Amino acid sequence: MKYSSAIFEKAVQQFKNLPGVGQKTALRFALHLLKKKDGNELTSLLQSIQDIQHHIHVCAICHNIADTPECSICSDANRKKNVLCIVETIRDVIAIENTDQYNGLYHILGGLISPLDGIGPEQLHIQSLMHRIQNGHFEEVIFVLNPTIQGDTTIFYIKKLLAQTPISLTSISRGIAFGGELEYADDFTLARALQNRLPIDNYVKN
Amino acid sequence: MKYSSAIFEKAVQQFKNLPGVGQKTALRFALHLLKKKDGNELTSLLQSIQDIQHHIHVCAICHNIADTPECSICSDANRKKNVLCIVETIRDVIAIENTDQYNGLYHILGGLISPLDGIGPEQLHIQSLMHRIQNGHFEEVIFVLNPTIQGDTTIFYIKKLLAQTPISLTSISRGIAFGGELEYADDFTLARALQNRLPIDNYVKN
Repeated sequence: MKYSSAIFEKAVQQFKNLPGVGQKTALRFALHLLKKKDGNELTSLLQSIQDIQHHIHVCAICHNIADTPECSICSDANRKKNVLCIVETIRDVIAIENTDQYNGLYHILGGLISPLDGIGPEQLHIQSLMHRIQNGHFEEVIFVLNPTIQGDTTIFYIKKLLAQTPISLTSISRGIAFGGELEYADDFTLARALQNRLPIDNYVKN
Repeated sequence: MKYSSAIFEKAVQQFKNLPGVGQKTALRFALHLLKKKDGNELTSLLQSIQDIQHHIHVCAICHNIADTPECSICSDANRKKNVLCIVETIRDVIAIENTDQYNGLYHILGGLISPLDGIGPEQLHIQSLMHRIQNGHFEEVIFVLNPTIQGDTTIFYIKKLLAQTPISLTSISRGIAFGGELEYADDFTLARALQNRLPIDNYVKN
């Protein structure tokens, strides 16, 4: 593509770095912002990106995003402190919160064990998970991980670490298809899968 | 959607203002930037948006985007100064430049005459067009406008204004389907349509 402005061309290139954005979409974004450059929209967008860069914290307890050092879920007195939901990413927490079916706490692993990609337990937030469980009063740990080999491996690994504890381990039921992505599941399917969670021994055997 | 961070939620809302971006895509963009927040990508994106806001000029002659008060096409000594291509928007110039078939100048109208939308000739850059034509040495004016009623009305209006001049008026041929958008035409079709341009009298009659 040829542009009469090098600044504009650079902006289009920057937008192409966003996930799923190609040349024409990036051009569309840049032209849209150019049209809005005298209004508040551009200033608000700039402010939001700067806020992402400087003002979003990672919760010291569950590794979720937060506006304060401790996230609003961990510090919420109304949530059950004896149930812990283990997820891979922030977007899994968002998906589960949207079902309105869960009122416990979360722990974000930040990934799944995947030896082929060089991701072992030490790259994930498993040490802090163990620390939380040892110092907390959890009665149930629910695994809500993508139903892939990496997800199963991660569950198996954590299950072994927790073998000596009396905590009940469960997993969401196999309502979500193999190879599917949690973020694209509809709220109803995800809510049902949470309600019908299975004891971890059943899950690993099948 | 529920987020544990109000800052993050605001960022997602900002991304939703971009054209064609819904809730899930906006969330994807925000999470992508969050992941990259310590790298250069976010800083470069911020810089580019700030540059769009403050450093992109509009060419005083043709109304194209430019890094200087006069755009690189208008100030290019190698381009033909006797051919003028009239287009609706900046993206039309980008599309034509990509065909590598045109070496003249441009004039961006900034829209098309559309009485139903309250857009008359005075809202467009037609006065500056007349000024250019009266003070220039143009031998041909090529209309490259979307083949819609608004496009035809605009051609008809400008044709009447130029009735007393000896300038040859042409239009790209009807190679582009009615109702189609110039920006989605492939380079080849657009290039052929430019090569096979028709005298304006043939165009308006058919």
